[in-house]
Amino acid sequence: MGKQAGGQSILLTNRPQIEAFASVVGKKEGEGPLAAWFDQIGEDTKFGQPSWEKAESRMQELALEHARRKAGIGNDQIDMLFAGDLLNQCVGSSFCLRDTGIPFLGLYGACSTMAESLLLAGIAIDGEYASRAAAMTSSHFAGAERQYRFPLSYGGQRTPTAQWTVTGAGCLLLRKNPGGKGPYLSSATIGRIVDLGVKDANNMGAAMAPAAYDTILAHFRDLSLRPEDYDLIVTGDLGETGSRILCDLFHKDGIELKKRHFDCGCAIFDAKRQDVHAGGSGCGCSASTLCGYLLRQMQAGQYHRILFCATGALLSPLSTQQGESVPGVCHAVAIHAEGY
Amino acid sequence: MGKQAGGQSILLTNRPQIEAFASVVGKKEGEGPLAAWFDQIGEDTKFGQPSWEKAESRMQELALEHARRKAGIGNDQIDMLFAGDLLNQCVGSSFCLRDTGIPFLGLYGACSTMAESLLLAGIAIDGEYASRAAAMTSSHFAGAERQYRFPLSYGGQRTPTAQWTVTGAGCLLLRKNPGGKGPYLSSATIGRIVDLGVKDANNMGAAMAPAAYDTILAHFRDLSLRPEDYDLIVTGDLGETGSRILCDLFHKDGIELKKRHFDCGCAIFDAKRQDVHAGGSGCGCSASTLCGYLLRQMQAGQYHRILFCATGALLSPLSTQQGESVPGVCHAVAIHAEGY
Repeated sequence: MGKQAGGQSILLTNRPQIEAFASVVGKKEGEGPLAAWFDQIGEDTKFGQPSWEKAESRMQELALEHARRKAGIGNDQIDMLFAGDLLNQCVGSSFCLRDTGIPFLGLYGACSTMAESLLLAGIAIDGEYASRAAAMTSSHFAGAERQYRFPLSYGGQRTPTAQWTVTGAGCLLLRKNPGGKGPYLSSATIGRIVDLGVKDANNMGAAMAPAAYDTILAHFRDLSLRPEDYDLIVTGDLGETGSRILCDLFHKDGIELKKRHFDCGCAIFDAKRQDVHAGGSGCGCSASTLCGYLLRQMQAGQYHRILFCATGALLSPLSTQQGESVPGVCHAVAIHAEGY
Repeated sequence: MGKQAGGQSILLTNRPQIEAFASVVGKKEGEGPLAAWFDQIGEDTKFGQPSWEKAESRMQELALEHARRKAGIGNDQIDMLFAGDLLNQCVGSSFCLRDTGIPFLGLYGACSTMAESLLLAGIAIDGEYASRAAAMTSSHFAGAERQYRFPLSYGGQRTPTAQWTVTGAGCLLLRKNPGGKGPYLSSATIGRIVDLGVKDANNMGAAMAPAAYDTILAHFRDLSLRPEDYDLIVTGDLGETGSRILCDLFHKDGIELKKRHFDCGCAIFDAKRQDVHAGGSGCGCSASTLCGYLLRQMQAGQYHRILFCATGALLSPLSTQQGESVPGVCHAVAIHAEGY
C-alpha cells in the first residue's frame, strides 16, 4: 500500500508502536482533574533548578527518564529524538538533550509540537530509518509569561480569553516491530498555515481553531473518514473559546464534533476553581495530557481510536508589535489501540 | 538494503533527487565572491518590506518562487515543506508560508537548519511519504543582530572572532523517481549535541566546530567512508576560527581534512575587503551557498560528491545571560551528482 494518502495525509502502514510514554507537570497541574495520570508532579515550578527555563529543561529530562525506564532502555538505544518548545531558540529542548548523546532533530511548531514530533518520529519508524525514536516537548508557565507577555512580578491583568500556559512535559518512545500491548500510529495529516486575521495575542484559541478545523477536515477528506471513526477527536489547547469556534465551524458543515471533541486545554485544569480563564495552553498541555490521561485510558481499553491534533499559534512578540495577525497550524496523528 | 546504516546514519536508497534550487541574498552578499551563482541579489536589505523581519520572510518567498519556477510547479504540487530560521518563534518561515497552503513542518536547528530540512525532506521522499518535498531556510544580518546582540544603531564593537550573519535564503525541491539531471541525496547523519563549554557568544565557530567534528566522524565511521570519498566536505558557517579548529581536531586523528574542506562562512565573503572578521554565519549562509555556488558546480560537473554539514549553535541570549555555555549540533547530508 502507498504511504501517501492524497492531500495532506500519510499512512503509517508499519504501525509504529508507542512503546512507552511519560509526563511530568508542575504543582498547579498536579492539583487539576488529570492529576492521577501524570508520572511526576513537581512540588513547585522550579524542579530544583535556579531558573524557570532550566526547570523546563529538567522536566524534559525527567519525562525522558521515566519513558526510558518504562521501556527498560538507555539513551544509546534511541536512534533519533524529535523535540522543541516555546522558549526562544528552543533552549528548553537543547539544554535537556545536551548530555544525552541522542541524535537530535529540533522542531518549532509552537503548541503543535507534540503532534509534529510524533508524526515525524512515526515516519522515522514506519520508514525504517530508526528502530526506536522519541518525541518530546514542554512548556513552562512562568518562562512563557515573561517571554511572551510580562514578567509575573509585573502583575498584569489577564483577559477572559487568556489561557494559562501549562508547566509540563511529555515524552513518547516509538519502536518498530510491534508485538507488545502498546497503542500504535496509523496515519497522520500535516497541517498548512491558516490565518483568518485574529490580532489579539490574548486569544490564541480563536487564532488556532481555524487551523484545527482545516487539518481535521483534510484528515477526514484524505482518508474518507468521519468523526464517528474515532472515539475522541483531541485538540491540544484551543481552550473554551477556541473549542466553541471549532465545533461551530464543523456544525456549519453539518458535522457534529462536540460529542467526540476533547480539548486538553479544557481538561487539564478546573477552569473556575483554578482561575485559568479559558483553559490551559502551551506545548506541555497536549504533551502531558497525551502522555498521561489519554494514553493510559487507551491502555485501559477506555478509548480505542483517537485523533490527536495539536495546534500552534505561530506568532512572536515581535510579529505582534509589527502589527501582524496570528497564523495557526495544526498537525493530526491517528492513534489506535492494539487490536482495533 | 536497510535504511539504517548503524550509529547516527541513514541510507536514502531511493535517491531523492534535487529537482530545483534557488538562492536569494542581500546587497553585501551580492558583492562577495559567490555573487555570480545567486538567483537574486537585493538592492538593499529590505526587499521592499517595512522591517528586516518581513524582509527575511520575503527572501524565503522569493527563493521558493524561483525554485518553483525552475521546476515548473505550483505551491499545490509540494506535499511537505520543512523550514525554520533564527528569528524568535521562527517567524521568518511561518509568515513566508502563511498564504501558500503548503503542508508545513517547522524546524529549529539554528544554523544547521539547511542540513536538517534537507535530510527530513530526503526521508519524506525516500520513504515515499511525499512525491515532492521542499527544504528552506534564511537569516538576516540586521534582524539577527538586534535579536541576539544589539540593535545596529547602538554601534557595538565587533570582536575578531565575530562572524557576520548572512542576509540570504535558500530553497531546494526534492522529488522521487529520479530520471532528470539533478544531483541526489544518498545518505545522512543526524547530529547529537556537543558542548565543550565555550561561553563566548561572539565565538560561534569555536562552539560549533566540535559538533561538526563529531558528526563528520560518525558519518565516516557509520558508512565506512574516508574524506577522499568526497570531493568536498562542506561546513555551514564555522568561519576562520571554527574551520581551523575542525581541521586541527581531524589532524590529531591522523585525518587530513584541510584539502577537501570548504566552509560556506569563509567562502561567501571576502573577509578582509568586506570587513566581516571571521566570516559569514547564519542559516542563510550555508543555504544560499548550497543553493547557489555548490549545486551549480555539481550540475556543471565540477564536483561529483559532496558532504554537506551545517552546524548550529543552540544558544539563546537568555541561556547566555544565565551563564550557560553554547551547545552545538551538526547534521550531514551526502549529495551525489547523477552518474556518480
